[in-house]
Amino acid sequence: MDFDTIFQGQLDALKAEGNYRSFADLERRRGSFPTATNHCAGGTRDVTVWCSNDYLGMGQHPAVVQAMVDTVQSCGTGAGGTRNISGNTHHHLLLEAELADLHGKESALLFTSGYVSNWAALSTLGSRIPNAVILSDAGNHASMIEGIRHSRADKVLWKHNDWRDLDRKLYAVGDRPKIVAFESVYSMDGDVAPIREIVEVCEAHGALSYIDEVHAVGMYGPRGGGVTEREGLAHRISLIEGTLGKAFGVVGGYITGSASLCDFIRSFASGFIFTTALPPAVAAAATASIRHLKRSDAERMAQRDRVAHLRARLDRLGIPHLANESHIIPVMIGDPVKCRMISDILLNDWGIYVQPINYPTVPKGTERLRITPGPLHSDADIDRLVSALGTLWKHCALAHAVA
Amino acid sequence: MDFDTIFQGQLDALKAEGNYRSFADLERRRGSFPTATNHCAGGTRDVTVWCSNDYLGMGQHPAVVQAMVDTVQSCGTGAGGTRNISGNTHHHLLLEAELADLHGKESALLFTSGYVSNWAALSTLGSRIPNAVILSDAGNHASMIEGIRHSRADKVLWKHNDWRDLDRKLYAVGDRPKIVAFESVYSMDGDVAPIREIVEVCEAHGALSYIDEVHAVGMYGPRGGGVTEREGLAHRISLIEGTLGKAFGVVGGYITGSASLCDFIRSFASGFIFTTALPPAVAAAATASIRHLKRSDAERMAQRDRVAHLRARLDRLGIPHLANESHIIPVMIGDPVKCRMISDILLNDWGIYVQPINYPTVPKGTERLRITPGPLHSDADIDRLVSALGTLWKHCALAHAVA
Ligand SMILES: Cc1ncc(COP(=O)(O)O)c(C=O)c1O
Ligand SMILES: Cc1ncc(COP(=O)(O)O)c(C=O)c1O
Repeated sequence: MDFDTIFQGQLDALKAEGNYRSFADLERRRGSFPTATNHCAGGTRDVTVWCSNDYLGMGQHPAVVQAMVDTVQSCGTGAGGTRNISGNTHHHLLLEAELADLHGKESALLFTSGYVSNWAALSTLGSRIPNAVILSDAGNHASMIEGIRHSRADKVLWKHNDWRDLDRKLYAVGDRPKIVAFESVYSMDGDVAPIREIVEVCEAHGALSYIDEVHAVGMYGPRGGGVTEREGLAHRISLIEGTLGKAFGVVGGYITGSASLCDFIRSFASGFIFTTALPPAVAAAATASIRHLKRSDAERMAQRDRVAHLRARLDRLGIPHLANESHIIPVMIGDPVKCRMISDILLNDWGIYVQPINYPTVPKGTERLRITPGPLHSDADIDRLVSALGTLWKHCALAHAVA
Repeated sequence: MDFDTIFQGQLDALKAEGNYRSFADLERRRGSFPTATNHCAGGTRDVTVWCSNDYLGMGQHPAVVQAMVDTVQSCGTGAGGTRNISGNTHHHLLLEAELADLHGKESALLFTSGYVSNWAALSTLGSRIPNAVILSDAGNHASMIEGIRHSRADKVLWKHNDWRDLDRKLYAVGDRPKIVAFESVYSMDGDVAPIREIVEVCEAHGALSYIDEVHAVGMYGPRGGGVTEREGLAHRISLIEGTLGKAFGVVGGYITGSASLCDFIRSFASGFIFTTALPPAVAAAATASIRHLKRSDAERMAQRDRVAHLRARLDRLGIPHLANESHIIPVMIGDPVKCRMISDILLNDWGIYVQPINYPTVPKGTERLRITPGPLHSDADIDRLVSALGTLWKHCALAHAVA
């Protein structure tokens, strides 16, 4: 059996359809965000990063950096074990307390990533609640889809953001334990779920509500508790899931909910139990970041200003982008090869880095540049991005490519 | 639907059978390993950790600590994105090159944990190689079991470490793509697979061989390349998987193999694609640790000495432990309640921390203390552990509890 031939065959197919991925080779520079060093054929060059999910630049915040450095110095580099076997450190417990408080919940539980938190929590709920059905928004993230798949519970898809469809489907399920899984901010279109309506539908049917706030924690709500905090709905949601790797600028994931819910996942989830705990220094850095964003609105305000500014400039030039109420600006291209080409020109000619987003991250035909302005992008950065896009649009008649 | 009642019911069942887990609240102290601070009801106390998987104490090694601190200082705390979208940093690429070299393979691919590397690699291989069958050692780790389950490929279990059984089962499978998944050092019994025989059987049947060296990397082989390096077999294995969270003292996981194998997993594995990359500082610390252990045998030698010393002392006292050729000393108790009781006495009366290992980490009835001596355990530490165990065995007639 020639396995390499099988692998290469599938890779060649990816290449032929323009969906083969090349990763940019970057080095972030603390103190100079959003500028990074790009290692390339000819050596290195400076680039402005326009597609980071370190949305607020917290990854270089002095308090966060200091917490991580101090904790490496005091505790060493790793946890040295799973949470159960010697890897449960005081820094993990402090972080979980901080997270429970952030969302106004009894408990929180930490995972190695947001992906693992969704996968482990949904697979455990779906497989261990007898006769459960999971009702999943059609736009849910891969980590939720895989968790549901892994649980082997019955799954019902409901139309993206359509609470009326959810209501009908919950009704049709009848008298079984029901779990409703959805997101607050959908990361690729930047649209926001009608959370109040969804929650009311869940309550009416006695369903467990499960929300992924990965792209909203740190970003929305007076203390960065996400859209559920901003809308005053957190206490009506059974489980709020989030990441420490995006607005909080570090890495890791978590769930929050009732004490028995978190204890249940802690006690039964394979993806929580059988893996080395995050380094204490990562936990300490995340705690510092969350604490800062609970008190400070400055980063969120500056970010919103940058987003509004860029949107207005794009509108003035007639460069089409998806309208939404979030911080994500998707500039639609609709073709994987063109999308990569534009991204390459931006990088090579302008020192502007926006990764092309293609399948499987978005459906085929909806390839895009996903731009995430942050508080650290200057007016000059915006000028430069807008000039570059304007030039590209004019010279390449790109409007034709736009959906 | 009262979900909390469902959760609480299953938690109560765990408690009734003695399998409910309480985590020790620890703080590792760099420079004082294996001593840690234990936060407890009365405040804090010093404990000696005897169950860490930071087997060689690399988590406090100056070069590893320095690499992590320096990289937090230079790059910030997080990667800021998935590997594809702005999170691919030079430190990740350097680490992958170091890992490929460690195992003498063309390529390596980094994951957020060893758990995720097994889960993602096996689920991708099993689901994307048409008509594949996975032949899994009956003792395989949860992360492999879940990856195989997730792939929905046909699965055939073979008797633990029994290459003759594997041979028969490969024969029975016939002419389909076959993947053979096993470990080198099994972490709970400390036994080592007959790798040469397994590899020969795989070659005879044209099967892809997949080995988990999580408990062996850094520990065995002249450069820490694992048991496959020690036995000169690495080049005959298709995929070697490992962790950065145990002997290397940091966190993260990886696979190594042919360029097309790694590119295939990189391009198709959901658990690789849809998650924030590890912080550059974690990658840099892991690189420093691997580099050190490629050149230095001192830690491995000192560790082996400590293991032999403790085994001899336990033998002299007649305290039964599983014989094996690895660094893991399982002292069998065979009952979850007794196991927790002994562990509590060791912690409270002696300041010795050995977490009780119970179901689901080991089968019910094989509960144990799993002791992992390291190069940083002093003669006095060993004396103290041996005294404590001797006293417990005498006073509590514990031999009766031993399988
Ligand atoms: C909606 C959503 N949920 C979960 C995740 C996974 O979080 P993490 O990056 O922490 O693994 C992501 C992206 O990475 C995401 O976009
Ligand atoms: C055999 C084996 N494979 C994989 C893993 C997972 O590795 P990690 O802790 O890096 O997630 C573990 C334990 O944690 C293990 O014992």
